Amino acid sequence: MPELKVGLIGAGWMGRAHAMAYRTARLAFGGQPAAPVLEVVADATEEIAARAAAALGFRRHARDWREVMEDPAVDIVDITTPNDMHYEVAMAAIAAGKHIYCEKPLTNDVATSFAMAEAAEKAGVTTAVGFNYIKNPVQNVARKLVEDGEIGAVTYFRGLFNCDSAARPDVPFAWRNSKARAGSGVIGDVGAHCFAYARHLVPQPVEEVMCDLSIVFPERPQAETAGWHSAGSGGGAMLPVDTDDVGTVMIRFVGGATGHLEISRVSLGRRMEIGYDITGTEGALRYQYERINELQHYRESGPPETRGFKRIEMGPSDPRYAAFFPVSGIGAGYSDFKAIEAQEFMEAIVEGRPACPDFRWGAEIQRLIDACILSDAESRWVKVREVGP
Amino acid sequence: MPELKVGLIGAGWMGRAHAMAYRTARLAFGGQPAAPVLEVVADATEEIAARAAAALGFRRHARDWREVMEDPAVDIVDITTPNDMHYEVAMAAIAAGKHIYCEKPLTNDVATSFAMAEAAEKAGVTTAVGFNYIKNPVQNVARKLVEDGEIGAVTYFRGLFNCDSAARPDVPFAWRNSKARAGSGVIGDVGAHCFAYARHLVPQPVEEVMCDLSIVFPERPQAETAGWHSAGSGGGAMLPVDTDDVGTVMIRFVGGATGHLEISRVSLGRRMEIGYDITGTEGALRYQYERINELQHYRESGPPETRGFKRIEMGPSDPRYAAFFPVSGIGAGYSDFKAIEAQEFMEAIVEGRPACPDFRWGAEIQRLIDACILSDAESRWVKVREVGP
Amino acid sequence: MPELKVGLIGAGWMGRAHAMAYRTARLAFGGQPAAPVLEVVADATEEIAARAAAALGFRRHARDWREVMEDPAVDIVDITTPNDMHYEVAMAAIAAGKHIYCEKPLTNDVATSFAMAEAAEKAGVTTAVGFNYIKNPVQNVARKLVEDGEIGAVTYFRGLFNCDSAARPDVPFAWRNSKARAGSGVIGDVGAHCFAYARHLVPQPVEEVMCDLSIVFPERPQAETAGWHSAGSGGGAMLPVDTDDVGTVMIRFVGGATGHLEISRVSLGRRMEIGYDITGTEGALRYQYERINELQHYRESGPPETRGFKRIEMGPSDPRYAAFFPVSGIGAGYSDFKAIEAQEFMEAIVEGRPACPDFRWGAEIQRLIDACILSDAESRWVKVREVGP
Amino acid sequence: MPELKVGLIGAGWMGRAHAMAYRTARLAFGGQPAAPVLEVVADATEEIAARAAAALGFRRHARDWREVMEDPAVDIVDITTPNDMHYEVAMAAIAAGKHIYCEKPLTNDVATSFAMAEAAEKAGVTTAVGFNYIKNPVQNVARKLVEDGEIGAVTYFRGLFNCDSAARPDVPFAWRNSKARAGSGVIGDVGAHCFAYARHLVPQPVEEVMCDLSIVFPERPQAETAGWHSAGSGGGAMLPVDTDDVGTVMIRFVGGATGHLEISRVSLGRRMEIGYDITGTEGALRYQYERINELQHYRESGPPETRGFKRIEMGPSDPRYAAFFPVSGIGAGYSDFKAIEAQEFMEAIVEGRPACPDFRWGAEIQRLIDACILSDAESRWVKVREVGP
Repeated sequence: MPELKVGLIGAGWMGRAHAMAYRTARLAFGGQPAAPVLEVVADATEEIAARAAAALGFRRHARDWREVMEDPAVDIVDITTPNDMHYEVAMAAIAAGKHIYCEKPLTNDVATSFAMAEAAEKAGVTTAVGFNYIKNPVQNVARKLVEDGEIGAVTYFRGLFNCDSAARPDVPFAWRNSKARAGSGVIGDVGAHCFAYARHLVPQPVEEVMCDLSIVFPERPQAETAGWHSAGSGGGAMLPVDTDDVGTVMIRFVGGATGHLEISRVSLGRRMEIGYDITGTEGALRYQYERINELQHYRESGPPETRGFKRIEMGPSDPRYAAFFPVSGIGAGYSDFKAIEAQEFMEAIVEGRPACPDFRWGAEIQRLIDACILSDAESRWVKVREVGP
Repeated sequence: MPELKVGLIGAGWMGRAHAMAYRTARLAFGGQPAAPVLEVVADATEEIAARAAAALGFRRHARDWREVMEDPAVDIVDITTPNDMHYEVAMAAIAAGKHIYCEKPLTNDVATSFAMAEAAEKAGVTTAVGFNYIKNPVQNVARKLVEDGEIGAVTYFRGLFNCDSAARPDVPFAWRNSKARAGSGVIGDVGAHCFAYARHLVPQPVEEVMCDLSIVFPERPQAETAGWHSAGSGGGAMLPVDTDDVGTVMIRFVGGATGHLEISRVSLGRRMEIGYDITGTEGALRYQYERINELQHYRESGPPETRGFKRIEMGPSDPRYAAFFPVSGIGAGYSDFKAIEAQEFMEAIVEGRPACPDFRWGAEIQRLIDACILSDAESRWVKVREVGP
Repeated sequence: MPELKVGLIGAGWMGRAHAMAYRTARLAFGGQPAAPVLEVVADATEEIAARAAAALGFRRHARDWREVMEDPAVDIVDITTPNDMHYEVAMAAIAAGKHIYCEKPLTNDVATSFAMAEAAEKAGVTTAVGFNYIKNPVQNVARKLVEDGEIGAVTYFRGLFNCDSAARPDVPFAWRNSKARAGSGVIGDVGAHCFAYARHLVPQPVEEVMCDLSIVFPERPQAETAGWHSAGSGGGAMLPVDTDDVGTVMIRFVGGATGHLEISRVSLGRRMEIGYDITGTEGALRYQYERINELQHYRESGPPETRGFKRIEMGPSDPRYAAFFPVSGIGAGYSDFKAIEAQEFMEAIVEGRPACPDFRWGAEIQRLIDACILSDAESRWVKVREVGP
Repeated sequence: MPELKVGLIGAGWMGRAHAMAYRTARLAFGGQPAAPVLEVVADATEEIAARAAAALGFRRHARDWREVMEDPAVDIVDITTPNDMHYEVAMAAIAAGKHIYCEKPLTNDVATSFAMAEAAEKAGVTTAVGFNYIKNPVQNVARKLVEDGEIGAVTYFRGLFNCDSAARPDVPFAWRNSKARAGSGVIGDVGAHCFAYARHLVPQPVEEVMCDLSIVFPERPQAETAGWHSAGSGGGAMLPVDTDDVGTVMIRFVGGATGHLEISRVSLGRRMEIGYDITGTEGALRYQYERINELQHYRESGPPETRGFKRIEMGPSDPRYAAFFPVSGIGAGYSDFKAIEAQEFMEAIVEGRPACPDFRWGAEIQRLIDACILSDAESRWVKVREVGP
């Protein structure tokens, strides 16, 4: 059985989630076409890395992330660091000829995102970026319905990503609250996922955006932290927040369709209000992450008195789903979909073709983010083509 | 038992709904403090008016709406004509010293709306405008929760009004599709209801709007119509549509809260997706018209593992509700709430105090509509104070 | 316009609801084929009746319900008294040749129910019994789906009617808590509605029942009451309750399908959990009263990955619904459906044909209730044919 | 890091799910207090076992399940065979001093279930039985709410487990359709899970049951199968089915509370309608598996107009949940909860205390199953104590 050896950079929540994803993919797909091996892990300090190696079952740890690049045993560099390290780590991995699986957003600005995508393409390495929400197999059903004309021509797109991870003023300051570290706030953090839904499902690209971003809590207490990721409750001095907490984006697609996004990490009570509503000339699609395995589809056909939204539950007619469960409704979740994401990346590597979404795909999302930031700064509609290469 | 005699101008769906509302209010509230009498009805032609009088049980019909103004027996002029007649009819009624219950929007522009409000105030007549969605008693519960600090300070307001009444291109041309007749499209028609929710529930007024309106179907077939209201399927020539079908509005409230509206009459499958989400610093409120009697309330208090949105069902602890039903959950609906609207108007008349919402309230909503239209026309944020007196 | 003059016996909540229903039907259906007139009302005392006449707009009141029977002006006797008076009042009305609209359950036992049905048939009067939940037009859609084979052969029926009207031990003693007055508890009161759903929707009749009834609160405080219906909070002495609060019924239909009912008036928090789930060999139907205008339909056809329950919202393609609203989703409710019930009764009178459900229909429901009571008493399966004529 | 070496008997869907569970638990809980090792796997033939070892990453395979018992390297015997093998395998494992994790139902009858439980207790081995649905951390919140008096005294329990895994007549015959192999049909297969919810959450035990079981499809086509578990579509000869497809159980608890179960594997469209409703004298709890991470809680307290069911979403305040996700609403699922089940079993082994649910717990569930089967056979209420030791 061929193997793919993973070097993980960053062992916070998302690093652990990636490690689990490889392990689970290994069992769900039987190690085909390759079996992932948790080879080496790096984090902010050697001590953290050593603890992570033991806890997550990596063969060894690195003293520094640069060690991983030089390691000939490593096939895949997996990046789950804070956003501002993505570019440096990824460029080093590309230079070393590694395949790369990078968390989103790709980088903190459109220029570096496209630079990364181009470098990877030139080097011929396989890349993937972690827009996990579109890897839920139900999104393949959604896409197929659009492609099959089951909603007609798209006229409106609504994307939502509201959560309450930072809804209390005493949530401690984290790198996400620093523009220098995170690039942006909620627009890059969760708005990116909404744009990913749009890119996955709306045939026409976004042409223009009009964005309004706000900071609800302008300062947060310093946290007691050790590594790259803050944790615990903040009891320290107050630090200024310069990234957005909440935002709205109005969208115009090429061809005339419109839409909007609502994004927030200060929506008290909305744990994960993620989803979309897509209206077309012949029907509509609705997805709500709170019912993670369900898609709602409306089709304007048949006798009027029997029309309505159909609630489709994902099931084993989808082969990805079937790798986990032989029946519908059993409760597939985030962990399963993250494993599918890892699996699809590994398949692309073995088959020598681009994964989806890859770095270029991610760079196009970054272009939208940067257009939103510009729109907010200048209080005007911004053409997407105004930013980036 | 004192009586209030009603002269109804317009006997389409909404006219009939008003007639039913008076009748039902009469029974639900026992004719206290006054019993409404369906006195006279006018419509586009005498023939239509005569048929309406028979069908709806009015004592008599008028040949022309102007007859109603001169009729000393009439206490209340009730206006359910197309939008562009509101001003003329209402001004005549004010001149005649009648109390007026006018459907929304008040008029087709902010200047005439405020003129109407001022004339009515000067004449000392009682006025009401049909923002029926806030007359659902559950909205009083919602308002009280806000006032009691149960969600803290409002940080975000989402308003939705999506329906599919015009979602098919073969829906015939109606006065609503003509800017000259309707003033605007979906922004005035249903956007007004969203702004009414905001005005009812958010303590701070709207300061600025940024609006994007679109026409999805630029022409519609001519309908076979007789009176003020078109009906039936359109089989005639294609007529140009110049009012908006769908729109998004970004909002900034005085004090820094933000929000948005999504409004549409071309949302296939969304029969009446009406509602709001209000986020505050201590909690949140959610209302979905599809569950007409329910309010959802979140409060950030108590042990974390027991927090969540509470689904409150309206019940007889509310005296308005109790006038209809002795138990919760029985299925109060639009007809009941419209009767409450009529009842509250009649109470205001008898008690000699302003009803809520009255013409001035409605004029402030019209200011928001006009600000949105200006914003859309000029593609820029518009301060609400830029329009109107 | 022909008229039908109503004599109402009982002016509690349900009496008022009937009065409203006639009035609303008058406007919704334009007085066709006949216009109801609220002629006379009787209640426990003349004083209550006089108050009711004024409050509800009846032309006059009766000193005693027997007066109404002798009144040649009265066409319809409408009975909303406590259960134990139904028989006596209805038999008098039949003897007087009146048409009768009687609240459910028809009487307190199967013998009198069938006696009433037979007497009415012999006298040639039109009868109706108030199983209002099947008059919601969405139940016609449901029935048509069953008849059209859209769920195949029924294999299982679940009926629910859980509410919390008596969930607190301090809810005062009412006639409903007395076997002598009410005949039974929750089984006759709300179980009857579940059986009505089954009778309306399942092609095969019930063959056998197995029932388990319980009293949760064996005594309740005496209420301060004046008329037939108790009201207010009970502060008096404790009275023994001898009717059931909660029950479960297992059902076997002719032909092999099975099912069950769950019924309760002590389900804290469940305001009105009413509904059914019907499983067939080709599909399923689900109705939940909490979403009063919606029907859910599943059909096992089409590609597996697009199957699911379809949420059908009632709309104006149904002519009964269209009498109220020109669009879907507007919030039809109990009051509207009660008006449809009154209207259909009046149509049957004018057209000289049986209404549905009529007294015989109601007597068959009573047979099921009595079979359940016998089953509970003897702790055994009871064939429905064991009870009644 | 101490290790626990697993010998898996049965590599069908559930075997793979157990293998994944150990792997995921290893990463989620960092190998504490012990790291599971996938040591050896057995299935119906050596060939199937060899394939499974490769696919699931076991170190080796066994030619026969008996080999695993004799293997000194094995600490845990994990049994996911068809029901009728549970007893023989488990007794051999007990004899060999292995800890045992056995899928439910424990065996096919109450006598062997208790025999197994007693043998294990005598041998001092740790046992666990796979009632996975109560291992969802949200069920701990539910139990704590009951224990804290948040619903008062339980008065009614509703348990549901309806699915459509066998809803089509062409679903091939499997061991589950044979009484000899499976012991019973849906009552043991899914009814057991409902009883598990009741046992976990209702303080009083079940005293009496009245059960009605039916076979909807009396024969099914033979499948093309290789191992213990049938697969693929059945194209072969028709085989007689002698286990139940659908059933209803009425329940009486010690102390007077009542309830019922509805169980089915032929509920077209209901993919996994699993859940419970528990009514108490002070509140209620509702759980629906379709919203796997949510619990609904009603408490009769506070102002009437603000009471309602609260929708509680599981979050990281629960340490088991926090081992997977740092935020609420992220989409925990079956795979995560199965890992928690494995983890809790391993903790019990290391700490030398009984796991919950253990074999005795499972035997008590089997007693309920057998009481239901007897009730159905004799059409009468059966006291639970009538069956078993």
